[in-house]
Amino acid sequence: MQIFAAQTQLVLDLVGVFFFAVSGALLAARKGFDVVGSVLLAGMTGLGGGVIRDLIIGVPPAAFDRPIHILPVALAAAVVYLYFPHVSRFRRTLLLFDAAGLGLFCVTGTVRALDAGVPTVSAALLGVTTAVGGGLLRDVVAREVPSLFRHDDIYAVPAMVGAAATALLWRLDALSLWTGVAASVATFTLRALAVRYGWRAPLAYRRLSP
Amino acid sequence: MQIFAAQTQLVLDLVGVFFFAVSGALLAARKGFDVVGSVLLAGMTGLGGGVIRDLIIGVPPAAFDRPIHILPVALAAAVVYLYFPHVSRFRRTLLLFDAAGLGLFCVTGTVRALDAGVPTVSAALLGVTTAVGGGLLRDVVAREVPSLFRHDDIYAVPAMVGAAATALLWRLDALSLWTGVAASVATFTLRALAVRYGWRAPLAYRRLSP
Amino acid sequence: MQIFAAQTQLVLDLVGVFFFAVSGALLAARKGFDVVGSVLLAGMTGLGGGVIRDLIIGVPPAAFDRPIHILPVALAAAVVYLYFPHVSRFRRTLLLFDAAGLGLFCVTGTVRALDAGVPTVSAALLGVTTAVGGGLLRDVVAREVPSLFRHDDIYAVPAMVGAAATALLWRLDALSLWTGVAASVATFTLRALAVRYGWRAPLAYRRLSP
Repeated sequence: MQIFAAQTQLVLDLVGVFFFAVSGALLAARKGFDVVGSVLLAGMTGLGGGVIRDLIIGVPPAAFDRPIHILPVALAAAVVYLYFPHVSRFRRTLLLFDAAGLGLFCVTGTVRALDAGVPTVSAALLGVTTAVGGGLLRDVVAREVPSLFRHDDIYAVPAMVGAAATALLWRLDALSLWTGVAASVATFTLRALAVRYGWRAPLAYRRLSP
Repeated sequence: MQIFAAQTQLVLDLVGVFFFAVSGALLAARKGFDVVGSVLLAGMTGLGGGVIRDLIIGVPPAAFDRPIHILPVALAAAVVYLYFPHVSRFRRTLLLFDAAGLGLFCVTGTVRALDAGVPTVSAALLGVTTAVGGGLLRDVVAREVPSLFRHDDIYAVPAMVGAAATALLWRLDALSLWTGVAASVATFTLRALAVRYGWRAPLAYRRLSP
Repeated sequence: MQIFAAQTQLVLDLVGVFFFAVSGALLAARKGFDVVGSVLLAGMTGLGGGVIRDLIIGVPPAAFDRPIHILPVALAAAVVYLYFPHVSRFRRTLLLFDAAGLGLFCVTGTVRALDAGVPTVSAALLGVTTAVGGGLLRDVVAREVPSLFRHDDIYAVPAMVGAAATALLWRLDALSLWTGVAASVATFTLRALAVRYGWRAPLAYRRLSP
């Protein structure tokens, strides 16, 4: 039995794809790619994380199984083409849409893995993979320092919190559409605050004082 | 039932692998890699797109299932080692072989997906993925701006046209070896003309006039 | 029937993951990533090659199937955080741990593929893929020139020798834990000597004398 109704899961997925796809199309615009490159980068960003997750779970990747997933990608590229003429604001807007995608995908990714019968801890890991995979792919193919690794503000931690919360809610039999959406919103808020206030994690090694 | 005879599909595949592998070996030469790096980059370029496609379809990747796929890769690295001493011509030759691989793979990729029972639209998407996947992998691991995203000339559009034509021909019950090869040649020609005349697509966003 | 006892294979796997994970965490430290980035890069390096191998074989990736694989990753990031304060020695130590991972994974990767019934030649190819995959992923997402392609010293050749030796031993019915470990140690030694003495392969093309 599915945790969310199939229809609900699909809608949440498509919304998440749209958010990440906008972040991809905005990066394409900032890098001077053409509209075709914009659609392709939007597609990799929006669909990449989910495809990796589905391959690891061992189910047919939804993005190719149900061609409706192209819709939010095309929409995102069109919206960026038509309504974002101000390059100066690209970075901030990109971060916002990326955070929205992160919030949705860490929850829906975990749910899809739980639906497939994956053990709880692995399901949370796959939720994080779904959430950070598309953005990592976007940054790598567009030759940017991956958001995932930038020391400016924490990026993966909100996704980890959201995925862990989702897995925990499911364990406690308290995972519903509304608690799931709450976990999404909390993740988005955490990430947005991290960007706003520059919340950082400690470096990977302890520098000795001289 | 297979669209092309198994033997024909294999031969077309190996020829496509060879074309892309030469483009990989040429890039390895231009970047100053050694012969082992040349074989590996040739292999990723020639086999990468097909492996991604097969993983998404859910069949064992042909490249590993049938070790004969190493042959065109080794041949490509050997040909580049022996016969391409002129670095100055690397870029042009690379573009030519890359275009030939693109033309073949957008057709054979779509055919292989249709053979596996994938819905028409998804099959065309997988054809494009096969065609652009290897070159994207090549450019990313060799730290080049991906051809896919360069604004110089359209790269993905010919592959999209070729894959869509193949899917359409199949729908119309008119896909045979000869119409397939015609779609390949048309794709190659389109891409070669795009390089020659610098055909471009519009940018990802509309710059406002100052 | 498995070539190594399941327990033995798991232990060897976890040790290999630890070696590569340390190399990932050291690169994260050198690039100025934070501890979360360190865990993630350690994870991609330690688990990436095996996940790609398992996807190609068509078995559930061990890294997600058995969450114990997170342990060596977390340990590696902790060890680097606590005990490696000297950035100046990062490069040398990274090369050492990377070589140890290479030595183990080219053997265990080949063994796992043989266990799954993959033909001998393909099994050796998958062993090489396992051995070089994680490090390639590490270098690509951290925007380094991949070790795989650096002309400084041979990197893939020792892995190829180790994987081929493993496949050959299996063919000769002489593959046991001890011959396997011997192949691992030989691979590690070969790579370490290549680094120490700057052993190189010829370039990808023959430069004509002027």
